[in-house]
Amino acid sequence: MSRSNDADNAGFRRLREAHITIVGLGLMGGSLGLALRARGIGRRIWGVARRDAVIRRAVEMGAVDGGSLDLIEGVAGADIVVLATPVRAIIEILERIGPHLQPGCLVIDLGSTKAEIVRAMAQLPPGPQPVGGHPMCGKEVAGIAAAEATLYEGAVFPLIPLERTEAEALATAETLVEAVGATPIILDAERHDRLVAAISHLPYLVAATLVRAAADVAAEDPLAWTLAASGFRDTSRLAASDVTMMLDILITNRKPVLEMLQRYREHLECITALLAQGDDEGLRAALEQAWQDRYGVVL
Amino acid sequence: MSRSNDADNAGFRRLREAHITIVGLGLMGGSLGLALRARGIGRRIWGVARRDAVIRRAVEMGAVDGGSLDLIEGVAGADIVVLATPVRAIIEILERIGPHLQPGCLVIDLGSTKAEIVRAMAQLPPGPQPVGGHPMCGKEVAGIAAAEATLYEGAVFPLIPLERTEAEALATAETLVEAVGATPIILDAERHDRLVAAISHLPYLVAATLVRAAADVAAEDPLAWTLAASGFRDTSRLAASDVTMMLDILITNRKPVLEMLQRYREHLECITALLAQGDDEGLRAALEQAWQDRYGVVL
Repeated sequence: MSRSNDADNAGFRRLREAHITIVGLGLMGGSLGLALRARGIGRRIWGVARRDAVIRRAVEMGAVDGGSLDLIEGVAGADIVVLATPVRAIIEILERIGPHLQPGCLVIDLGSTKAEIVRAMAQLPPGPQPVGGHPMCGKEVAGIAAAEATLYEGAVFPLIPLERTEAEALATAETLVEAVGATPIILDAERHDRLVAAISHLPYLVAATLVRAAADVAAEDPLAWTLAASGFRDTSRLAASDVTMMLDILITNRKPVLEMLQRYREHLECITALLAQGDDEGLRAALEQAWQDRYGVVL
Repeated sequence: MSRSNDADNAGFRRLREAHITIVGLGLMGGSLGLALRARGIGRRIWGVARRDAVIRRAVEMGAVDGGSLDLIEGVAGADIVVLATPVRAIIEILERIGPHLQPGCLVIDLGSTKAEIVRAMAQLPPGPQPVGGHPMCGKEVAGIAAAEATLYEGAVFPLIPLERTEAEALATAETLVEAVGATPIILDAERHDRLVAAISHLPYLVAATLVRAAADVAAEDPLAWTLAASGFRDTSRLAASDVTMMLDILITNRKPVLEMLQRYREHLECITALLAQGDDEGLRAALEQAWQDRYGVVL
């Protein structure tokens, strides 16, 4: 017990002294910087962004100590590199930074799909220690201005170690995750991607499709939006997610998402048929089942 | 201006002196009682419920002065009768109470579909003054225990007058709606039903279907529910709506709901095809459109 605490403390001390670079200072990267700073983690927290104004804003907010527009310069000398851009940008960045990372550097990402990212991580030269990551939290508002230190609190945070990942690097990643208030959970990439297709990517597509269908009606009768209340607002909320982020997610998780869409369409056709037939009892049974699942497990 | 204020005041004075009976003391009926009492409306507010415990609870909470298990006894002598049960129960009640209503009695309902209810209202004997109503508010938690005086505040509240409805009765209904903090809007039943199919009934079916599809995955891998975060919770929230209430809504609004389901399925097939083809730009355009509609009009 005390040994484990010592080990934890040693890990935490290393984090406190670490040079950390966050690549991408949007909602997720900016919030991570704020959360790390709030816990006194990182002797230096550096940001990499494409626009100087974003770095200045992140410095003003206290999310980073400073930053760089140059990726290679930004990751040089870092003990921990966190990739916090959309998924396809993460993959491109992994292809570029390999030779410039110092030996033993922990490379972790915050992308929402993992199979393609972990494949890109496997191609890194031998020195760095890659771990895939995916905090299950977020907001519809993108950008550094929406960042907040509490974003990660209470979130489940899957971590995907590679075969090459050493135990100590994974332990550091877990300590980092716990430090910002999240709960690490070790998963493999394929299982992760299948699960998030069901509980994250499908809900997004369902919301976007709902908005498109309702917009057809609103185009004929704008009163539709006036009548829309909290039910429509909540069901459609995810349609306001950042499109570039979501597009990367869908394209890099195409097969599991298409499988979930197929399942969803089967259930939709079943419910539609019950309603079309006026099958009161059959429809009630299907809706009761959904009610129970929603109540029993999700709330 | 002052004439209109006088008229308003006269209407409000009549409301204050009215004998009001609320049939159905669930979330909507109970909240209406609380809201009316908070504004000092109704010399006597009476409740009708099927269980004595519900009436007792409503009296304890201050939603009604007292109540009756007998429908006919409960509506006798009322100046205003509010029907706050599921839609098909409203239709049955309308068939039963006609001969027992006093002349000029305002009969208003809170049901979520209007065409079938207004048809049943048209069959009332000549004395009473029927007006269809539909407050666009609610919660997933059903029952008197969840009732609150503020439920109607800020809600849009469509009112559907019949050909036989006198102007004064409609004005009383509007004053009642405004008194509980909602905004009346005069609509015809068919237009109402088509609009709510789009922005209320379709979202419910979308949420229920999402839960069913995700439950398939969770049955194979229960970790799915562990990973479900606020996005899934919001998108699926309506699936926890009261099933009896929703079933009545769907069955009494079948044609408009089936038309909306058809539209929704067309958009879903379009988005699915774009993803299956890996059509990056086409998919982006569809998602951007949803993003704009969600942002531009709903927030």
